[in-house]
Parts: sequence; structure tokens; C-alpha cells
Amino acid sequence: MLKTPEVEASTLFIEDIEVGVSRSLSREIDDAVIHAFAEVSNDRNPVHLDEEYACKTVFGGRIAHGMLSAALISAVIGGQLPGHGAVYLGQTLSFRSPIRPGERLDVVVTVAAVDRARKRLTLDCQCRVGDRVVVTGEAKVLAPSRAAG
Amino acid sequence: MLKTPEVEASTLFIEDIEVGVSRSLSREIDDAVIHAFAEVSNDRNPVHLDEEYACKTVFGGRIAHGMLSAALISAVIGGQLPGHGAVYLGQTLSFRSPIRPGERLDVVVTVAAVDRARKRLTLDCQCRVGDRVVVTGEAKVLAPSRAAG
Repeated sequence: MLKTPEVEASTLFIEDIEVGVSRSLSREIDDAVIHAFAEVSNDRNPVHLDEEYACKTVFGGRIAHGMLSAALISAVIGGQLPGHGAVYLGQTLSFRSPIRPGERLDVVVTVAAVDRARKRLTLDCQCRVGDRVVVTGEAKVLAPSRAAG
Repeated sequence: MLKTPEVEASTLFIEDIEVGVSRSLSREIDDAVIHAFAEVSNDRNPVHLDEEYACKTVFGGRIAHGMLSAALISAVIGGQLPGHGAVYLGQTLSFRSPIRPGERLDVVVTVAAVDRARKRLTLDCQCRVGDRVVVTGEAKVLAPSRAAG
């Protein structure tokens, strides 16, 4: 059974969003979430699931799927910044360091640019384990507008 | 219960990979996988889960999470091209069209460039529903080498 943290969902409208606004999510990347992600993604690479195999790889032990971090970035975008009403246009991802089972991942999404005329946000995305930066990237999204509501 | 398609895993070594080599995965994006992705990602945006809400949005009905397509791209990379031994460096994603519950997603990953000296691949990634292109992107990965094995 997955222990999914409850985060209160919200919507921020384009009119109310400024550069520097930030939202975050923190989740322990335990075996349950790694196995669940393997099932939902079809990615059963043994580096994620088989400790004996993983120990012989360059990683020296099991690691989480890189795209699991991306899934959590998308949760911050779709749940909080801008939240419900967001339209996801694009995402870049740089996988910098592996995440080990049992580590706690902090996902921080920060507004880097606001284009009010086109209702577009550029979001800086950073995933960290403690002080270690594990995934970085940039998202492009359309934010909902009070005018359209 | 998720009905996950079985795809035989494989490893391609950098020495054997040429531009144009392609691997793929096909999966029906049904309600079970959408709900499973919502749990594993923490992304419970009602546009994915609540038909009544989703009908009032610009999408006119429920859609799958964009990052679910990305998870399936990563499965082709980690399972087939180059497969086991791959090290995921980066990914770009462009979300072009929504995916509706019940649609079948075809994920095709094709080698666009091979840098044998650095063991690096550039992979063109395309997700389609029939003839409709829904997600495109480019991946950067390190491939395993026969020399290192």
C-alpha cells in the first residue's frame, strides 16, 4: 500500500503569479513507490528492483527511476503551481545524481518567468535529497486566468 | 489490477547501435493505469480523475497525465534501447495533444545520434495515438559497452 502524502491542492491564477513564487512536495522514495512506478511505467529494469544485479552496476546498488522524480514535479505543477487548470506544454529534465531507496526527495518548483499576455509560465524545477541536487529542469505551462473564469 | 504488457527486455551495446535503430512499446491508457499513476505521482488533479470536473475544462473530458507518456518513454530506454545498463542523462518533452482514457499509446524511440567515444546516444522519442502525435522529445543516455563488460 502506497503511503501518499496529502498535499492541499490549489489554483493560482496568472494574474496573481510573480517571479519567485515557489511550491514544493516532499516524499520518501521507499520500495513501495519504486515497485508501483515499475508497474505503472512498464520499466522493470533490474537496477531499480534487484539489489544483487544493481550492486554489480556502476550505481553500486538499487536506484529509483529517474522519471519518478519527473512525475513528482508534474504533481507540484498540476496540484499547486499553477495547480488545477494548468496546461502542461513542455518539460526539460537533467538527471544529475541517483536516488537510493529510502531517501527523502524534496521537489521545489519556482516561477522563473511570467508572460501574462500569453498566460505562460516558465518554471524552474529542482529535486534534492538533502543538499544533493538529483534532478533539475524547466517546465512551460499555461496558467488559468481569472478573466476566463 | 494493472494489465501491464510484457515486453522482452534486452541490452544493446554502444558498439552495435546505429542511427535509425528503433524500439517501441504499446499500451492502452485505461482507467486503471491513470489511477495508478495518480497514486504513484501524487498528481490527483481532477482533470485526470473526475469526468464531471474535466468536462468543464478546456479539454472537455478527462485526460491522462502527460508524464505518464514520459514514464513509458523511459521504459523503452531502460528496457530495450539501450536497455539494461543504460544511464539516463536527460530528457526533453513537448506535450502536444491530450490522451483520453481508453486510447492506445504507441511509444517509439529511435536513435538520432551515436557518440561512440563518449558512449552517448541521442534518442528521438515520439508518442502517438494512431496517427496523432501526442508527445515528442529527445533523450540523452549513456549506453553500456562490450569493452567495459
